[in-house]
Amino acid sequence: MTHIAIIGAGLIGRGWAFVFARAGTEVRVWDPQPAVLDRLPDDIAGMVEQTAPFGQAGTDPKATAARIRAVTTPEEALDGAALAQESGPEVLDTKRALFARLDAIAAPETILASSSSALMASRFAGELPGRARCLVGHPVNPPHLVPVVEIAPAPFTDPAVTDRARAIYAAAGQVPVVLQREIDGFILNRLQAVVLAESLRLIEQGYVDVRGLDDTIRHGLGRRWAFMGPMETINLNAPGGAGDYLTRYGAMMAGLARSSARDEAFTPAVAATVGAAFADVSAPETVRARQNWRDAELAALAQHLAARAQHDNAQE
Amino acid sequence: MTHIAIIGAGLIGRGWAFVFARAGTEVRVWDPQPAVLDRLPDDIAGMVEQTAPFGQAGTDPKATAARIRAVTTPEEALDGAALAQESGPEVLDTKRALFARLDAIAAPETILASSSSALMASRFAGELPGRARCLVGHPVNPPHLVPVVEIAPAPFTDPAVTDRARAIYAAAGQVPVVLQREIDGFILNRLQAVVLAESLRLIEQGYVDVRGLDDTIRHGLGRRWAFMGPMETINLNAPGGAGDYLTRYGAMMAGLARSSARDEAFTPAVAATVGAAFADVSAPETVRARQNWRDAELAALAQHLAARAQHDNAQE
Repeated sequence: MTHIAIIGAGLIGRGWAFVFARAGTEVRVWDPQPAVLDRLPDDIAGMVEQTAPFGQAGTDPKATAARIRAVTTPEEALDGAALAQESGPEVLDTKRALFARLDAIAAPETILASSSSALMASRFAGELPGRARCLVGHPVNPPHLVPVVEIAPAPFTDPAVTDRARAIYAAAGQVPVVLQREIDGFILNRLQAVVLAESLRLIEQGYVDVRGLDDTIRHGLGRRWAFMGPMETINLNAPGGAGDYLTRYGAMMAGLARSSARDEAFTPAVAATVGAAFADVSAPETVRARQNWRDAELAALAQHLAARAQHDNAQE
Repeated sequence: MTHIAIIGAGLIGRGWAFVFARAGTEVRVWDPQPAVLDRLPDDIAGMVEQTAPFGQAGTDPKATAARIRAVTTPEEALDGAALAQESGPEVLDTKRALFARLDAIAAPETILASSSSALMASRFAGELPGRARCLVGHPVNPPHLVPVVEIAPAPFTDPAVTDRARAIYAAAGQVPVVLQREIDGFILNRLQAVVLAESLRLIEQGYVDVRGLDDTIRHGLGRRWAFMGPMETINLNAPGGAGDYLTRYGAMMAGLARSSARDEAFTPAVAATVGAAFADVSAPETVRARQNWRDAELAALAQHLAARAQHDNAQE
């Protein structure tokens, strides 16, 4: 494969660079801020140092780092690229301007993918001459430690482009999920939003405290959802599978969802309550240290799950 | 500690027996069906066999099994018990009758806890003379592999009983979450219900297929939620912590939650769609085999997370 272009070298862009380089692909990274590019080799070295002990830096970690090259112009990044992964700020006008610039530069066969976490491609690429090669490829932070990527094509995206993007992400070891229709927030953030809304409501109305809420997911539902989704979960919670589950328990679960919280749950009061619960771990340096802890745990979990999958495959 | 009584030897009851026995406590199990009690030793042996390789059967797996004893009357189970864990069918009238019987037999100091997954204690214990020692202790299936237990006291439950129940569960290695107010479905199933509702809606309206929905959680949000909850997740997604996150992104997430699905999402049509997606793995024997796979994965994950926690503690 020809190389991948990364546009924007923030946390998400660097994660993407690591994903492709780890899989053996050359990567060219451009960012409008030279200082960000200057720091890139050190940042990548830090990622290698964190992930290599868990087997998440590729078969040859030094080679992974060596495949990532900073370039000083978008033209150089895009020239001959199979796919450009735009990872700039989540601001509509900025994204629109950036996509116009990329579309004007890139060869017609280069796919333009945005890491946008909630903005649909039809909102920032619809006016472009090359809009048929534009789509969203939304990762989770950090992309090199959480493999899902939501591929959200716009109505104007060429289906062949969607297929190629899916193949490129899959070949890099990610897990592509292709949306069949565009929707704000895609799938992942919509699910996160309903969990946040109901959680904030239960906290604000005094049913549970912040710690108890987190424990319920972390030591409860999250244990299953780390290796199977909510649909497979219900398929195993009734003797006759998912259809049987929904027949037996659908009305009960519907009853619980009947009064579920929506946008009204996001109040300043509950933001203050949740903020206060984390007050002693919310200083920027503490958050950064804890983000490092999170990423190490994600790397350890990725290693664990890969070993389990290998074990399951060997048994089949 | 004196022994624990398990009332009902189905999947949940056997899991509870294993939890307490593994922690070194004697357990007496009673079930109204003699055939279920006859099978108990074999069932427990199977649980030892599955969990011991992952270090989840206690320091001496044989001793764990030996601490679990079937008894033929509820009187024998309850006599001298610190806590009785009722794990019968989730049917209001059945639970009401069973609690009346247990309350009539048990000594005043024995706590009567129900494994009820959605019914509040005030709905089945409110008329009892000993209602002050009644509460819900809702586990996840299987209790010996998923540690959370939701403790839901009724308004009439003695706070000292709630505290003792919490201490008993914690001493057995579970993670108790105490609800400050009763609510149908408690916390865990309310959160599961909103995820199911939005998931079913996104599937039925054609945004994503069943497999893609599961992949979004399994290879996305579930990776974080296996070791931290949704509140700690947002605390790490903004430089200034959870309060900062809700200030920056609260309106965006509220926008996604504004139109979220509720009970109307549980339609016969989507039940058929989801059922069809699992059609080739929904035969009862296939579901049972896959439940065994799930439980082995949960045991492996419990071992992994315990090792990580030990590693983190050693670093502090």
